[in-house]
Amino acid sequence: MVSKSQISLVKSLQQKKFRREHRLFVAEGYKSVSEFIASGYQMHTVYHTTTVAAKLYKLSKKVNFQDISAADLQKMSNLTTPQEVLAVIHLPHWPKLTQSNLLKRFTLVLDGVQDPGNLGTIIRTADWFGIQNIICSEDTVDAYNPKVVQATMGSLARVNLHYTDLSSLLQQLNLPVFGALLNGDNIYTTNFGHEGLVVMGNEGNGLRPEIQELITKAVTIPRWGQAESLNVAIATALFCSEISRSAYLK
Amino acid sequence: MVSKSQISLVKSLQQKKFRREHRLFVAEGYKSVSEFIASGYQMHTVYHTTTVAAKLYKLSKKVNFQDISAADLQKMSNLTTPQEVLAVIHLPHWPKLTQSNLLKRFTLVLDGVQDPGNLGTIIRTADWFGIQNIICSEDTVDAYNPKVVQATMGSLARVNLHYTDLSSLLQQLNLPVFGALLNGDNIYTTNFGHEGLVVMGNEGNGLRPEIQELITKAVTIPRWGQAESLNVAIATALFCSEISRSAYLK
Repeated sequence: MVSKSQISLVKSLQQKKFRREHRLFVAEGYKSVSEFIASGYQMHTVYHTTTVAAKLYKLSKKVNFQDISAADLQKMSNLTTPQEVLAVIHLPHWPKLTQSNLLKRFTLVLDGVQDPGNLGTIIRTADWFGIQNIICSEDTVDAYNPKVVQATMGSLARVNLHYTDLSSLLQQLNLPVFGALLNGDNIYTTNFGHEGLVVMGNEGNGLRPEIQELITKAVTIPRWGQAESLNVAIATALFCSEISRSAYLK
Repeated sequence: MVSKSQISLVKSLQQKKFRREHRLFVAEGYKSVSEFIASGYQMHTVYHTTTVAAKLYKLSKKVNFQDISAADLQKMSNLTTPQEVLAVIHLPHWPKLTQSNLLKRFTLVLDGVQDPGNLGTIIRTADWFGIQNIICSEDTVDAYNPKVVQATMGSLARVNLHYTDLSSLLQQLNLPVFGALLNGDNIYTTNFGHEGLVVMGNEGNGLRPEIQELITKAVTIPRWGQAESLNVAIATALFCSEISRSAYLK
């Protein structure tokens, strides 16, 4: 049996304001929840129906599991087709980013990405290519927004998201800053080296002028057809792949 | 002034059944509508508010423009934030696909892609990379679904979509068939040559077994991290980019 106040706490976490206040977020679905448990996220409560109880209890002995009715689960859910598991999870405390965390690897930097589906897909893609950190401007959509969590397909459990003032961070770090811009070097002939930041901009407006000024290597994806632009998650993936490609062929 | 029957016709076109029956579909927004006009699509009616009249009338003298109130436009719209233009457009008749249409170029083949946002992003990406034809299995989401039209950002006006029985088509054509599969050749060292089909599967299930059997070159995108899979639009873009890359560096 779930109390009304539990349901209303869970529902409130659909809003960023309450996620920040309670330092909690929600993940739904067995796969996603199991990946957060496996990655050492601290679980507040994992609500589930009896159908998945046996499978879930094998994942951890430390978790506060609560067996509830499908109807109660539906009341809490943010999905049109609720899953059998919904976890309330503590927001992580990421270690402070320093130059040494970012050496000898590539890190994504997002300047004002707004669409939750795009951010989710970027996190999933980063996880595929082994990118550990994503640095976001303060106005990038919140990674713990339920639509982002859903779109990451569990990858949010493995990629560290940092929200910060990009201008001052980029000025402090002494690393190559690659940016997707028009009239840059062709991505297919760019030497990415072995470390750096890859900065991607907002869906409609691209990179802010003050961030553009901090790009040390402008890179362009050549266009063969007539589309005006590429989706930001697609462009991010093409950068990840080129970097991965050069590491692979080295 | 718009009649109730006009509004109900436009609303009905949100459903595939009525799009097929009337051979019409809807596009919204100035940019998207102007690209369909420029690409020679036959317009049924272009509804618009007075604000954009002057700009619109310059695009074509043959189009049936209808100046209506913002309130009426909102009644017809499929968007939460309606645009100032909504066009009812005749479904195109694409030329029948033959082997000769597909020589010396690459064509995308989609086996059961279900998500409208994914199909829209794939069409936009294809347009960027100059791919002219996309062949879809009969159960792939309809490209004239309003969510797909929206996600293509106008690119649907330039890419030809064909819906057909993939098994029989792939058996008739005598072209290399590249497919995204596990345990295939590494995409970064694959020689794509100068023509062929690139087959991508359903979001959850990948390629159907009968389609897998028709793949002549299995290709794999190497994974460096731990995500279980890539989003289908992302994987499609990585194939387009590799093909474009080899054409560029040739």
